[in-house]
Amino acid sequence: MSDVAISGGGLSGPLLAVFLARRGHRVTVYERRDDPRQALSQGRSINLALSTRGITALEKVGLVDSVMSAGIAMHGRMIHDARGKQDFQSYSADGSKAINSISRSTLNNVLLGAAEQEPNVSLLFGHRILATAHDSGEVSYEANGESFRRTHDVIIGTDGAFSATRDAVVRADRADFSQEYLPWGYKELSISPDPSGAFALDPDALHIWPRGNAMIIALPNPDHSFTATLFWPFDGPCGFADPRTIAQHFAEVYPDLVPLLGDLQGEFERHPVGSLVTVRMWPWTRGRIGLLGDAAHAIVPFFGQGMNCSFEDVVELDRCLDETSDNWAEALPLYAERRKPHADAIGELALANFVEMRDKVSSTMFKARKNVEHALERLAPDHFDSLYELVSFSNVPYAETRTRTAQQRRFPYNVVAVAAAAKALVTGSHR
Amino acid sequence: MSDVAISGGGLSGPLLAVFLARRGHRVTVYERRDDPRQALSQGRSINLALSTRGITALEKVGLVDSVMSAGIAMHGRMIHDARGKQDFQSYSADGSKAINSISRSTLNNVLLGAAEQEPNVSLLFGHRILATAHDSGEVSYEANGESFRRTHDVIIGTDGAFSATRDAVVRADRADFSQEYLPWGYKELSISPDPSGAFALDPDALHIWPRGNAMIIALPNPDHSFTATLFWPFDGPCGFADPRTIAQHFAEVYPDLVPLLGDLQGEFERHPVGSLVTVRMWPWTRGRIGLLGDAAHAIVPFFGQGMNCSFEDVVELDRCLDETSDNWAEALPLYAERRKPHADAIGELALANFVEMRDKVSSTMFKARKNVEHALERLAPDHFDSLYELVSFSNVPYAETRTRTAQQRRFPYNVVAVAAAAKALVTGSHR
Repeated sequence: MSDVAISGGGLSGPLLAVFLARRGHRVTVYERRDDPRQALSQGRSINLALSTRGITALEKVGLVDSVMSAGIAMHGRMIHDARGKQDFQSYSADGSKAINSISRSTLNNVLLGAAEQEPNVSLLFGHRILATAHDSGEVSYEANGESFRRTHDVIIGTDGAFSATRDAVVRADRADFSQEYLPWGYKELSISPDPSGAFALDPDALHIWPRGNAMIIALPNPDHSFTATLFWPFDGPCGFADPRTIAQHFAEVYPDLVPLLGDLQGEFERHPVGSLVTVRMWPWTRGRIGLLGDAAHAIVPFFGQGMNCSFEDVVELDRCLDETSDNWAEALPLYAERRKPHADAIGELALANFVEMRDKVSSTMFKARKNVEHALERLAPDHFDSLYELVSFSNVPYAETRTRTAQQRRFPYNVVAVAAAAKALVTGSHR
Repeated sequence: MSDVAISGGGLSGPLLAVFLARRGHRVTVYERRDDPRQALSQGRSINLALSTRGITALEKVGLVDSVMSAGIAMHGRMIHDARGKQDFQSYSADGSKAINSISRSTLNNVLLGAAEQEPNVSLLFGHRILATAHDSGEVSYEANGESFRRTHDVIIGTDGAFSATRDAVVRADRADFSQEYLPWGYKELSISPDPSGAFALDPDALHIWPRGNAMIIALPNPDHSFTATLFWPFDGPCGFADPRTIAQHFAEVYPDLVPLLGDLQGEFERHPVGSLVTVRMWPWTRGRIGLLGDAAHAIVPFFGQGMNCSFEDVVELDRCLDETSDNWAEALPLYAERRKPHADAIGELALANFVEMRDKVSSTMFKARKNVEHALERLAPDHFDSLYELVSFSNVPYAETRTRTAQQRRFPYNVVAVAAAAKALVTGSHR
């Protein structure tokens, strides 16, 4: 049994605390902010798309029902063209598969509650970590204006893209590190329920307004509102630096959305512009410190996989502890070696999917490819899965999703797969 | 007149202090370490290669004589092959051009002395900067165990590859940053004078023992010793992790060097292994903070240009202050925009030169190319300069050295240049 500090009480921190407590470790979660469950306002409404990988992790600790009950299934994407026409594209051939819109704060509260119920877990809010020593395990932190020190056997940094825990790893010798921003920012806007109190748009879809160099997406909330997010260049003639009024721009480019946005001008002025960072680093662990989730590999949100990937990290770390009989000095490097290629892969896929979402989902070629993919899936489901489906609806390691679909894209030269599809067509079986 | 803080009393910090003081600014240099001029030991002996760009900067403030008097000219490279045979390659066609071996600590002492003589400059040693606020210009620092705060109009970070000042820029929104290590480390060893007190090797050369995946270089010191530096992989069967004795390895690979290394085994055990980092970032400036030298663009040492490049930064910042009548808010971004492409270029060239130095300088092809380059230089000096000469013996901006020599390498298809060379040959003139 080890004394483990988890730095960061966001999503993967409390989930990891539950996993580790059930392994018998004594866990302290340090969170800089106050307990969000006691806050008067939940702050900004951020939606996440929970999919198979995240669900798999939640299932292992019996949290899937309490989380899923707060989510809204989305079975496909709804593309809004420039004239306001809507086009629904199912995420799977048979329409059965869905990703789940869930509020970040709801999920955070569920996970904090679950961690708190573990007798081995202490949650310390309002505790800011000042420094972490990878060799001694000493953590310096500040709470209520005073500084304290405590020594832990292990410190896991789950403190996000701007992790303070990471500094101790990045500043140690020979740590490669990069943070890279997209020239696009984002701003959240809200779509209220219609006058009857119903959803103003189909709640079974992730809505996308692809506009080439910009896009808006919208995800449904349980209160029948949607949270819309505008992705727009920071600079240049058409972006956040655009001198024209936002009302004018939206009327031109998102005409069907304007009537749904109650207070576009006001929200646009009040809400901050977020930025989109990709963090890559190596190693992820040094001495007693390990990094997990965004702290080790922040990715852009365009594949809806940031949280799902972090939850997969938690499962892999748990597996490595299994395999090493909870020998942390072996388990941490093993976890890092195994996860690094997959974090790299989903980081690249997420960047590439931005181009696809804002530019290609409305194209005829994209739709034709999706139709072919879905037809092939129906014929030979073992052989054809789209990249989106492998990423969102399977636990196939991220790095393998690319190689598998790269092989498939060689179709029609992929004789084996085509032969299998043909055979299935002839025999009427789906093998 | 502005109140300027310079964070870092290394090489470019005091040089910049001299430039700024002479512009009329009030300058405070904060240096974490104690005054090196009062230290009993000068610490490790690190040699630098001062060349044209660095000399140009020193000339502008009248420091070139005091610096050059402590340097030793090296007119070429001396290649030591695996059997101990030596081969001298001149740096220029006519043998006139030299780079200058100079001790880092000597240079530091000269520059600190020069800064101290400026009435507008204060040097504060033993002052560690804890935090810098880019908006207010407030610097928190620690000295003699106590914390202080002071506000400056401008703060220039010249605090090296691991700059603390940089944190305030990197942690601000949308700063791209990367640090990347080579899988090679380095260790310094010393070559004593021969029994008569003379140099044990030709002091007019930078000595290189190229060995493919490893190399040693040696630069002369005024006391007739040489400082040798071994560049060797950290990992793998032949590198710092090699279980064989270092004496055995050196006897096999550097046979002519072994008799010159007095205490190989002892020095190898006592001296640390250094690492080789490349830092790239953007922006270099935010609010009242600007970064200069390694803090903004640390490069590997294989082109001998780290200090020379930093001194060029100082000259460019001075030029930008001239052009903007010392309007810092305009001068800092202007300096950064102008220098960034050249810092990127020399960073790449330095990485590429490692391959050339450890692998190619001993090859027949390399020597043949150098011979052709030198022949063409003699014939048409305006048209042919080697990359090495443009980088080391000119003030041509780094990014242009690549494009110019890329054009030349298209020889013999470069008809104009060849025609000029032919004409020069015929007319006997050098135009």
